[in-house]
Amino acid sequence: MTNPIFPTLCVVGPGLIGSSVLRRAKLDRSIAHRLIAYDRNPSVLERARALELADVVTDDLTAAVADADCVMLCVPVGAIPEVAAKALPAMKPGAILTDVGSTRRSVLDGVLPFLRPDVAYVPAHPMAGTEHSGPDAGFSTLFEQRWCLLTPIDNTPPNAIARMEALWHAMGARTRIMDVEHHDKVCAIVSHLPHLIAFTICGTADTLADEMRSEVLDFAASGFRDFTRIAASDPTMWRDIFLHNRKALLEVLDRFSDDAKNMADAIRGGDDATIVATIERGRRIRRSLIENKQA
Amino acid sequence: MTNPIFPTLCVVGPGLIGSSVLRRAKLDRSIAHRLIAYDRNPSVLERARALELADVVTDDLTAAVADADCVMLCVPVGAIPEVAAKALPAMKPGAILTDVGSTRRSVLDGVLPFLRPDVAYVPAHPMAGTEHSGPDAGFSTLFEQRWCLLTPIDNTPPNAIARMEALWHAMGARTRIMDVEHHDKVCAIVSHLPHLIAFTICGTADTLADEMRSEVLDFAASGFRDFTRIAASDPTMWRDIFLHNRKALLEVLDRFSDDAKNMADAIRGGDDATIVATIERGRRIRRSLIENKQA
Repeated sequence: MTNPIFPTLCVVGPGLIGSSVLRRAKLDRSIAHRLIAYDRNPSVLERARALELADVVTDDLTAAVADADCVMLCVPVGAIPEVAAKALPAMKPGAILTDVGSTRRSVLDGVLPFLRPDVAYVPAHPMAGTEHSGPDAGFSTLFEQRWCLLTPIDNTPPNAIARMEALWHAMGARTRIMDVEHHDKVCAIVSHLPHLIAFTICGTADTLADEMRSEVLDFAASGFRDFTRIAASDPTMWRDIFLHNRKALLEVLDRFSDDAKNMADAIRGGDDATIVATIERGRRIRRSLIENKQA
Repeated sequence: MTNPIFPTLCVVGPGLIGSSVLRRAKLDRSIAHRLIAYDRNPSVLERARALELADVVTDDLTAAVADADCVMLCVPVGAIPEVAAKALPAMKPGAILTDVGSTRRSVLDGVLPFLRPDVAYVPAHPMAGTEHSGPDAGFSTLFEQRWCLLTPIDNTPPNAIARMEALWHAMGARTRIMDVEHHDKVCAIVSHLPHLIAFTICGTADTLADEMRSEVLDFAASGFRDFTRIAASDPTMWRDIFLHNRKALLEVLDRFSDDAKNMADAIRGGDDATIVATIERGRRIRRSLIENKQA
C-alpha cells in the first residue's frame, strides 16, 4: 500500500457532510487507511454502524481522536468550539484539526483559545450539500466538481495546508485558499442570504389564511417549489450559520431589502425600464454561472 | 377518426407554452385534427416551420383564426388584450377564445370590451414552465401532472368550459375552476413573489464589487444556483406579470418584507427561538408539498 494522505482519519459527526467524506474515503483508501467516526447521538451511531461508514464507530471522543492524523469536525458551526476544546487535548502531536463549517470568523474566534502549537488547524468549507441531513443522506460523490474553501490562519505549516488540499482533491473538489473575512462575505451572498430568504418566503406562505395555504400547496409552481427545497435544510445548522455570520449576512440582507423595495416601487409606479433592467441582471448572472459550469 | 375536442386549434405565439401545446396535440390527434400556429415574429415562424409544430404556420392572424374552433393566445399577458382585439372579429361563431396568461384580473379587464356574445372566452392558466423560452424550449410533457387553473366569467356556456378542461386533461394536466381575484392572490404567493425575489437577489449580487462578483460566480453554492435558475426566465413575460398583478403581488411582497425584517431582527438580537421557528415553518411547507406530490 502506498502512503495515504492520512493514516487515520477521524470524522466527528457523520451527518450529510461527514458521512459523505467517509463514504468517499472508503472507496479510495489512498485517502486514509483507517476511518473512525464519532458521534454523541446514539441513533446517529446506530445508523453509522449499520451503514458501515467507518472501521471504528464510537461515542468516546477522546479515544476516537487519540490516534487520528486528521480530526475533521462535521458539526453545526455553533458546536465547533466546544467540540474542538474537548478533542484538542486528546490529539497527538503533528495531527491536523479541521472543520467543515460554513462561517469562519466566529468559529475561528471560538477555537483559537484552545489551539495547541503542535496541532495545525486548517478549516476547510466544502460548498456542497443537499436539503437532506443525517448519516443516511450522504453519498460519495457529493463534493465532485464543487469548491472547498480553505481558510488557514497565519503561521500554519504549508505541509498541513497541502495535505488538507490533497484530501479535498481526493474527494473530487476544487480548492481555494481564502482570507477569513472575505470567505464570510462571499458565503453571505452566495449561500446564507438565499437560504434566509427561502426560509422567510415559506414562512410568509405559512401565515396566509387556511384556505389560501391549502391552495398554495396545491398550486405550488416551479418558483415556489425551488424555494421550499432550499428551505428544507437542517434547522440547527442554519440557525448557527445565521447567528455566526450575522454581520456579513445582515449587510447583504440590508442591500437586498433596498433592492426589493426599489423593485416594489418600480412595479407600483409602472416603471418598465427598472423592472426589465433588474430581470436582465438576473439573467446575466445566470449566463455567467453556466459559462463557469456552476449551473 | 373519432371527433376531436376541437377540429381546428390555433395557437397564437408558439413559444415555450404554445409550442408545448402544439407538440402534445401533434402526438394526440384526438385533441385537434388541424393545428395552426401564428406569430408576428419572422424568426419564431421560421423555427415553428423547421420544427413542424403545426399543419399551418402563418403570419396572417385573420387567416389563422378564421377556421379555428379554439384560439389559444400564448403571448405575454400585456399583449393579450391587443391580440384578442385583433383576433375576435375574425373568429367564427361558436368558437372558443382562451389564453394562458399568469394574471387574470387585468387581462380580463383588457379583453372584456372586445368580447362577442357568440364566442366563449375561457382563460386557462397552466402552472408549468421552465426558465427557457421560445419555440425550441417547448416539449410535449410540460403539463404532465401540473395544474391548469380555469377562470371563466359569468354566463360562460358550461360546454365551452368542459371542452377547455378536456383539452388540458389531454395535455396531462389537472384542472381547477377558480375565481379571478382568488387566482391572482394564489399565484402572487406561489409564483410571482418567488420570481420577483429571485430576480432581485441576482441583481443584488450583480451590484457587488467586481472582485466579489467574480467570486460570487465561482462559488455559487446550491442556494444561489436555484435562484439564478428561476431568474433566467423571459424578461418581457415577467415584466408584464409583475405590472398586471401588481396589487396582489405588492401585498404579498409587503408581507414578505415584514417577515424578512423580523428575521433580520431575530438574527441581530440572537433570538434563537424565532429563527428556528421560521426555519421549521419552511420545512413544514416543504413536507406538505412532498405529501401533495408537488415537490
